[in-house]
Amino acid sequence: MASPTAVSRLTKKAYEARVPGLREQLVQLQVRLKESPFKILLIIAGDEGGGRAELINTLSGWLDPRGVETFAFREQTDEERERPLMWRYWRCLPARGRLGIFAGSWYTETLREQALATKTSPRVNHELARIRHFEKLLADNDTLVVKVWLHLTKQDQRRRLKELADDPDTAWRVTDEVLHHHRIYGRLARMAEKIRAATHQPGAPWTLIDASDPRARNLAVARLLLRRFEVHQKREVARPASRPRITKSLSPAGLRRLLELPLDQKLSALDYEAKREKWLGRLNAAVRAAQEAKRSIVFVFEGWDAAGKGGAIRRLTSAIDARDYRVIPIAKPTDEEKAHHYLWRFWRHVPRAGLVTLYDRSWYGRVLVERLEGFCREEEWRRAFAEINDFEEQLTEHGIIVVKFWMHVSRDEQLRRFRERETTAYKQHKINDEDWRNRRKWHAYEIAVGDMLSLTDTPFSPWHLIPANNKRHARLQILKTATKTIEDALAG
Amino acid sequence: MASPTAVSRLTKKAYEARVPGLREQLVQLQVRLKESPFKILLIIAGDEGGGRAELINTLSGWLDPRGVETFAFREQTDEERERPLMWRYWRCLPARGRLGIFAGSWYTETLREQALATKTSPRVNHELARIRHFEKLLADNDTLVVKVWLHLTKQDQRRRLKELADDPDTAWRVTDEVLHHHRIYGRLARMAEKIRAATHQPGAPWTLIDASDPRARNLAVARLLLRRFEVHQKREVARPASRPRITKSLSPAGLRRLLELPLDQKLSALDYEAKREKWLGRLNAAVRAAQEAKRSIVFVFEGWDAAGKGGAIRRLTSAIDARDYRVIPIAKPTDEEKAHHYLWRFWRHVPRAGLVTLYDRSWYGRVLVERLEGFCREEEWRRAFAEINDFEEQLTEHGIIVVKFWMHVSRDEQLRRFRERETTAYKQHKINDEDWRNRRKWHAYEIAVGDMLSLTDTPFSPWHLIPANNKRHARLQILKTATKTIEDALAG
Repeated sequence: MASPTAVSRLTKKAYEARVPGLREQLVQLQVRLKESPFKILLIIAGDEGGGRAELINTLSGWLDPRGVETFAFREQTDEERERPLMWRYWRCLPARGRLGIFAGSWYTETLREQALATKTSPRVNHELARIRHFEKLLADNDTLVVKVWLHLTKQDQRRRLKELADDPDTAWRVTDEVLHHHRIYGRLARMAEKIRAATHQPGAPWTLIDASDPRARNLAVARLLLRRFEVHQKREVARPASRPRITKSLSPAGLRRLLELPLDQKLSALDYEAKREKWLGRLNAAVRAAQEAKRSIVFVFEGWDAAGKGGAIRRLTSAIDARDYRVIPIAKPTDEEKAHHYLWRFWRHVPRAGLVTLYDRSWYGRVLVERLEGFCREEEWRRAFAEINDFEEQLTEHGIIVVKFWMHVSRDEQLRRFRERETTAYKQHKINDEDWRNRRKWHAYEIAVGDMLSLTDTPFSPWHLIPANNKRHARLQILKTATKTIEDALAG
Repeated sequence: MASPTAVSRLTKKAYEARVPGLREQLVQLQVRLKESPFKILLIIAGDEGGGRAELINTLSGWLDPRGVETFAFREQTDEERERPLMWRYWRCLPARGRLGIFAGSWYTETLREQALATKTSPRVNHELARIRHFEKLLADNDTLVVKVWLHLTKQDQRRRLKELADDPDTAWRVTDEVLHHHRIYGRLARMAEKIRAATHQPGAPWTLIDASDPRARNLAVARLLLRRFEVHQKREVARPASRPRITKSLSPAGLRRLLELPLDQKLSALDYEAKREKWLGRLNAAVRAAQEAKRSIVFVFEGWDAAGKGGAIRRLTSAIDARDYRVIPIAKPTDEEKAHHYLWRFWRHVPRAGLVTLYDRSWYGRVLVERLEGFCREEEWRRAFAEINDFEEQLTEHGIIVVKFWMHVSRDEQLRRFRERETTAYKQHKINDEDWRNRRKWHAYEIAVGDMLSLTDTPFSPWHLIPANNKRHARLQILKTATKTIEDALAG
């Protein structure tokens, strides 16, 4: 990352001569962006007195406000506090073709903590890794990330604060905290430098802007935006549509685990019913205990077509008060969902404190159907394993209990169930041509499932393989696993 | 509304014999609903001890949870409190093809207030009118509204509360408040009766269900749902696709007002700039004062194509901190928006306390483009006038300041601007075939605009007609009007 470009101060006349051309270019950028397959996220951070608010107001005045959204991220609302920290940023991400300006962001919190701390805690390093990961995810997913740091020397900062203090309209902004930050300028500057260095990466580089002259600062940021857009636009056009391939297994351990799963369990109806009642009661108690502890629960149901996901979900939810859970069936994304990162549609349903979300199919579609049907590029589904692990880690770190099931049936059993569906009047809606097409790709799916089981089986969110040839046995095992996982999480 | 049907108590055996058939029918209902052009809203209210929660849990167990959403509406979140009361219900309305169950609803608040009050206040009557209006709006707009009242006699209630109190698992539910409600049973019953009578209407009738026997109660509600669905489904299929017609003016006063608007104002550039600076400063102060008073502002920009909405919005927003406003450009609805009532897409952008939303085109599309292009049926756009007035009344009653502009240009001036757009390189994206097509329908649009100006010009949200042949004059007048409206609202 280069040092801030030294800019000579700009006269008002020189500035005003340059503005109209820039405005014109910015509006043209927006017109082209609207038709582009990507979005822009402009993050404005910087030293105290660098003029973040003024810069954003100037830029907003230059841009067409109809394609821009600016977010300030002041105090969290209670709906935000009840979710993982990044939820509030996910809900504000710009959609395809739009420009989002974040005044304040995930950096604000980290910087504030650093200003109070005397040395870097492991937690801060963890947060920085998370930020790196998140910005990479955005950059990888058709977001042009432009990060600007408005830089002032200590001398410039003193001058700027004096100007603010001398003007009766702005004097209120020079608080004790601001003055304290000025006094510890050196320490804060070193910390900011460290944070920038840790989060300067391909796709999300920092640009330092000398903020000592507001006019030069405004022009510099506008030009940076235009330049980054041009480069990005060319790269997007030039990118070859890489053909998706069903590659060999990336990590065979999961496939082995899948193939070795015994499927011939027996369970009598009588035995099932007795045990079911017992476990339903225990699950009900566990869910209520989680609720009292304000711990949310996320269930993920994946499995072969006709493996019995729907039935298992019904049995499970019968133990939960209907007002406390929501089942999210995942089919084709809506057009709003398609205009965002694939994880956006799952983030939006993360439950409030103490509530339960059951995903009937989930984000794992990225590494299963999207991988195999070529709905995304190879590099996209390959990246997804790490993105998903990070997502689930954020959920669990926030205290959400995540329980993932893969419901496994043999190919013969699936055939039997498909035929049953075709010949039973009230089950016919549950089977269509696509199911048969997917069935023909069974072995390819096995490899994808195996990779998923290997690469997303984490300590904080392990996979539970459920043998499901025997429906009763499967349902009972799901009840037991769900109950024990919740109990363990509450005890831990 | 009929008295509750007296039901004989049902033996467990008789009940269990009937359940499988009902479950089957309910799931079939859901399969058919998925393909239907409407949605179902099931509202469960009732006397203390009627078993609302148990009923909902039973129903949820019978239904396929993937097509149902249940909402409890407990304490409001801060994001909800900062909007009009109905916002929280709008955001939870089911989409087309889905079933929503509301346990607790707009009735809960009204009932609670009534239980405390000694006589009906005018405010309660106002609330009941609002509820009636809202339910009519839903019923009119492809929602099958099923309202159930779980009824208990005082004797049954005593028995039920005793059962609850005797069971250690449920004793905690019999609170002092519940016991108090039992003591004043007669008064509460009369009030509930009054509320039901006031909100019993075509499209949203109440059905009283005898809740003394839980089994009979469950069956009765399930059967009611099935029956109402059958009737509604048939009516939907039988409904003729009434051809939209561009009728004569419904209310000529608005058209006269439009035609008589003088358009030949003059304003020198010098004069404009001096005045603009003054008014921008005053607007900035007004918006900040509104923000401090936690009053939100909603701007509505309507007008002819090329009337200068975009430019006016840019000038206006230049006086507001970019972090405090959002411009919502209204184009084609997304598919999520299409699956809801047409007002849903505007409700979702109602600003939080102290913030500003500018709608660039708005809900008035319903009575303009949708009316004229046949995107909705005649009865739909005719109804929209009252629906819109009610919506804006809710906004203003909550303290939101609503400012509506119609920007008016002559047909000749529009032609001049269209040609300018076509011949100016950087303006070409602003003109397309549709603009020319709309222009040919100028006189039909005039009638529609006139009706809008007549029928939605309310004391709480009047229309401001802006002569816009002269851009400078128009922008200045918008600045002035916006400022004065906000100042008056804060003073009032």
